[in-house]
Amino acid sequence: MQNLATPYLLFIGDAQDPLSIKMARSAADWSPEKCIGEYRLPGCTVTTGCPEMSIDEAAQQGAKSFVLGFANSGGHLDPNWLPMIQHALRAGLDVISGLHDRLTDYPELVATAAEFGRQLHDIRHPSGRLRTGKGYQREGKRLLTVGTDCSVGKMYTSLSIWRALQQRQVPSTFRATGQSGILVAGEGIAVDCVVADFIAGAVEQLAPANTAEHWDIIEGQGSLYHPAFAGVSLGLLHGAQADALIVCHALGRSSMRAIDNRPLPSLEETIALNEQMARMTNPAAKVIGVAVNTSSVSETEAQAYCAEVEQRLGLPCVDPIRHGTERLVDVLLTVA
Amino acid sequence: MQNLATPYLLFIGDAQDPLSIKMARSAADWSPEKCIGEYRLPGCTVTTGCPEMSIDEAAQQGAKSFVLGFANSGGHLDPNWLPMIQHALRAGLDVISGLHDRLTDYPELVATAAEFGRQLHDIRHPSGRLRTGKGYQREGKRLLTVGTDCSVGKMYTSLSIWRALQQRQVPSTFRATGQSGILVAGEGIAVDCVVADFIAGAVEQLAPANTAEHWDIIEGQGSLYHPAFAGVSLGLLHGAQADALIVCHALGRSSMRAIDNRPLPSLEETIALNEQMARMTNPAAKVIGVAVNTSSVSETEAQAYCAEVEQRLGLPCVDPIRHGTERLVDVLLTVA
Repeated sequence: MQNLATPYLLFIGDAQDPLSIKMARSAADWSPEKCIGEYRLPGCTVTTGCPEMSIDEAAQQGAKSFVLGFANSGGHLDPNWLPMIQHALRAGLDVISGLHDRLTDYPELVATAAEFGRQLHDIRHPSGRLRTGKGYQREGKRLLTVGTDCSVGKMYTSLSIWRALQQRQVPSTFRATGQSGILVAGEGIAVDCVVADFIAGAVEQLAPANTAEHWDIIEGQGSLYHPAFAGVSLGLLHGAQADALIVCHALGRSSMRAIDNRPLPSLEETIALNEQMARMTNPAAKVIGVAVNTSSVSETEAQAYCAEVEQRLGLPCVDPIRHGTERLVDVLLTVA
Repeated sequence: MQNLATPYLLFIGDAQDPLSIKMARSAADWSPEKCIGEYRLPGCTVTTGCPEMSIDEAAQQGAKSFVLGFANSGGHLDPNWLPMIQHALRAGLDVISGLHDRLTDYPELVATAAEFGRQLHDIRHPSGRLRTGKGYQREGKRLLTVGTDCSVGKMYTSLSIWRALQQRQVPSTFRATGQSGILVAGEGIAVDCVVADFIAGAVEQLAPANTAEHWDIIEGQGSLYHPAFAGVSLGLLHGAQADALIVCHALGRSSMRAIDNRPLPSLEETIALNEQMARMTNPAAKVIGVAVNTSSVSETEAQAYCAEVEQRLGLPCVDPIRHGTERLVDVLLTVA
């Protein structure tokens, strides 16, 4: 579990690809109250929508953390950013990174952080002691988003449902399992980066027993059908012991992410396998709805697709961006 | 992948529980040619069967590695052993540990190893660069042992089959996925200790494409039915892309290992789920036999149990220790 100091200054470097600043945009979109501004370099053509400011301006206005809000292929730390990170530490900010490379592997950053009494947070790398899972029944209700594939909107769907629950004053907590979600929540565990023995146990710690009426909304990862990541997805499913599952899908994708010639499973297959495997640790686990990213088709086609799925499966089906998730929440709140 | 220098001197400390020296005994039983002797301290009441010798005697006789051949609860390194480890390094031996605690976290050991040009091998902790899995079809045949539970004889069964294949001059390699197996093989990857994203990919690297008639005998871990470790088992199953599976089981166990009140799955359930999940990356995957640890019952009862299972499932069923694995190998060699 990480505990991150806010507000954040979102550093987006000289990014030109909107997808490369997903981490910064997630925080700006879902936790605007935690984001004081963005710091950008000449050449940057994208934005989080937060006001632009320098490191010193942000520090003066109370910023507490400097967030490396972008990703490049490989997750490496570009040495060009080291002077900016040093500047932020000297200005009194903690530094938060979601890169594979660890800030703490740079002795000069460790030294500066120590000198100025600041923290270096490598949020992709779990800190703290993890245990193995047990699968014992625990109090409280839990929802987990699962997928036909990776990158099909599990975090977005989870956050949208959590926000709707907040608005309806239903006691609930968003439980982050990846670096973008951790930045939004200010805490969490990147489950795809824990030691394999601890996947399920980490989720049991992340979403512990709670009051009977409280909902944990747990961000899913990967897919039981993905040949690289199914182990992570299964450990997450077993550790979550979810009462309710929502299947996420991206319309029009022809092959599993980063794998050639592997078609996505059908929604029916995805529902059946997730329910089968989830019931090993929660016999009541049930898929209660479907969330689809329909951005590849027109609004009319999206509506027709969702209507057809609803008819076929007897479950509500929405595009969370186009239609919101209120109809999923309506069904969620009927789960005993 | 680890590459370990042999012969080994097996250090068993002052152990009194035969189970606590599983690592040392595995090496002595399965790779006696790699074991020059054992080093024991006053109070030790167990043995690997290797000749007793001091560190200096072993060094004189050509020992190349000093093996911490025991485990204690928690996998911690007892500071009492540091002087012996230092002694071994100064005598010119590498040091091999299967503990959770890393040798390389002890600056004094790192310094001595550097001074004497020796290696510190933490074989539970994967070294080298891992990739994510792809699930692409690859040449060569592979067998994976799977289980109803943890600690049901998957390593023993795998090694017994591999030895039988060697005796029949069938080209084959034992692929180790845990610390005891790695010590036997001299190389391998402890898959339960890799970062979760890389479970399947690590197995693809461990058991790469080979000639069409070559068998990789891959040591399984955990169980798809274990609430803590199913994610590891699924990643292993997907990465192995095994043509043949052998289900391992321990007769008379009343609950899944380290979990209260969770009965073991039936053999039928274990076969069905492993075949279902394995076929995601190898549509031809098939359970070809059953290996049971029958040590809880008499020889007569063991034979009756195995005969009943054979009748019920139509698959050969043996206790590898009591009956050997020749009958499993007979069936294995009929796999196209």
